[in-house]
Amino acid sequence: MAPAYKVTYFDLTALGEPIRFLLSYGGIEFEDNRFQRENWPAIKPNTPFGQVPILEHNGKVAHQSIAICRYLAKQVKLVGKDDWEDLEIDAAVDTINDLRQSKLAHIIMNQTKKIKQTKAGPLFNEILPFYLGKLDEQAKRNNGYLAAGRLTWADVYFIALLDYINFMAKKDIIADSPNLQSVKENVLKVPNVKDWIEKRPKDNL
Amino acid sequence: MAPAYKVTYFDLTALGEPIRFLLSYGGIEFEDNRFQRENWPAIKPNTPFGQVPILEHNGKVAHQSIAICRYLAKQVKLVGKDDWEDLEIDAAVDTINDLRQSKLAHIIMNQTKKIKQTKAGPLFNEILPFYLGKLDEQAKRNNGYLAAGRLTWADVYFIALLDYINFMAKKDIIADSPNLQSVKENVLKVPNVKDWIEKRPKDNL
Repeated sequence: MAPAYKVTYFDLTALGEPIRFLLSYGGIEFEDNRFQRENWPAIKPNTPFGQVPILEHNGKVAHQSIAICRYLAKQVKLVGKDDWEDLEIDAAVDTINDLRQSKLAHIIMNQTKKIKQTKAGPLFNEILPFYLGKLDEQAKRNNGYLAAGRLTWADVYFIALLDYINFMAKKDIIADSPNLQSVKENVLKVPNVKDWIEKRPKDNL
Repeated sequence: MAPAYKVTYFDLTALGEPIRFLLSYGGIEFEDNRFQRENWPAIKPNTPFGQVPILEHNGKVAHQSIAICRYLAKQVKLVGKDDWEDLEIDAAVDTINDLRQSKLAHIIMNQTKKIKQTKAGPLFNEILPFYLGKLDEQAKRNNGYLAAGRLTWADVYFIALLDYINFMAKKDIIADSPNLQSVKENVLKVPNVKDWIEKRPKDNL
């Protein structure tokens, strides 16, 4: 029988990887449907909003990677114990995504050389250290996790995405953040996550 | 007794308004703590990540407007009936936020004149019509709502934010989207929402 879940994304970690991490964490078998860049124009019109990753389950299709991750987190029981904990987890996830999307991607990927030069200074000297300092304090308060004082999908989301964030930043952004390094260790030591990292295809970032 | 919820934001609709709409929808009394721009530097260091809106409740502070909205949606019962409906609601909310943040704000607000001129064409002639067309189809399938075939916090989020999105776009972005107009009507006809709009301070966008 085919697996009940199918993940469609580029042959990359990036935005697909938090979804694959969460499925792997839960021991849920899934079809890891990867396509090459040259096939994207043919696939794009068949997605809900012209974007990937998408998740297919029981004949239904979902888009938006964070929404998909939250859904899977409920299935694999990596959510909060009450609504306020879920709020803290959601806020951590959206902060990491802001870092990736509004701060890094928009300055690094889509700009003219001149804007890159003007904005890279503040980004690397002020904005990133500010956010990472705050996140590191948060991880310290939560004993090596981003929220709720224990492993939640916020940690899995962050660490699954970290290779991509580091690729954009061209450095290890948590090199000076000991408590975020603990978050990384706490995610990567989970046996199911370890197994996934060993068996996954080589990254093409 | 002071209200149990306190919302702190600029004296604007924008990102604060979905939170105020949801509290109003649920008939929850809240302290609507607005500050003027000149006071922002003094307030900023006392927020969790240097950003507003923030929500205070029972001595705890939360940030990230969408995470706050999802929390309040649970309190006022505007969530899905199962995990998959919540996924559809979350995906709609993140799509609207992408439209605001990645598509509109980053092109319109933060760029040089030259980039504005180069990018405004594709934005208004291709990207916005594509997204709005998809969202309009989605609202049609859901009988005048964005998800689940009935009123959820995705609708409230969208309509509360619409004035701000239109302000950035310098036009009514749903003028040609009859089903998104139905979403607007369906939110604005709720008596508690109507009452809030009548009594709220004049917008300073």
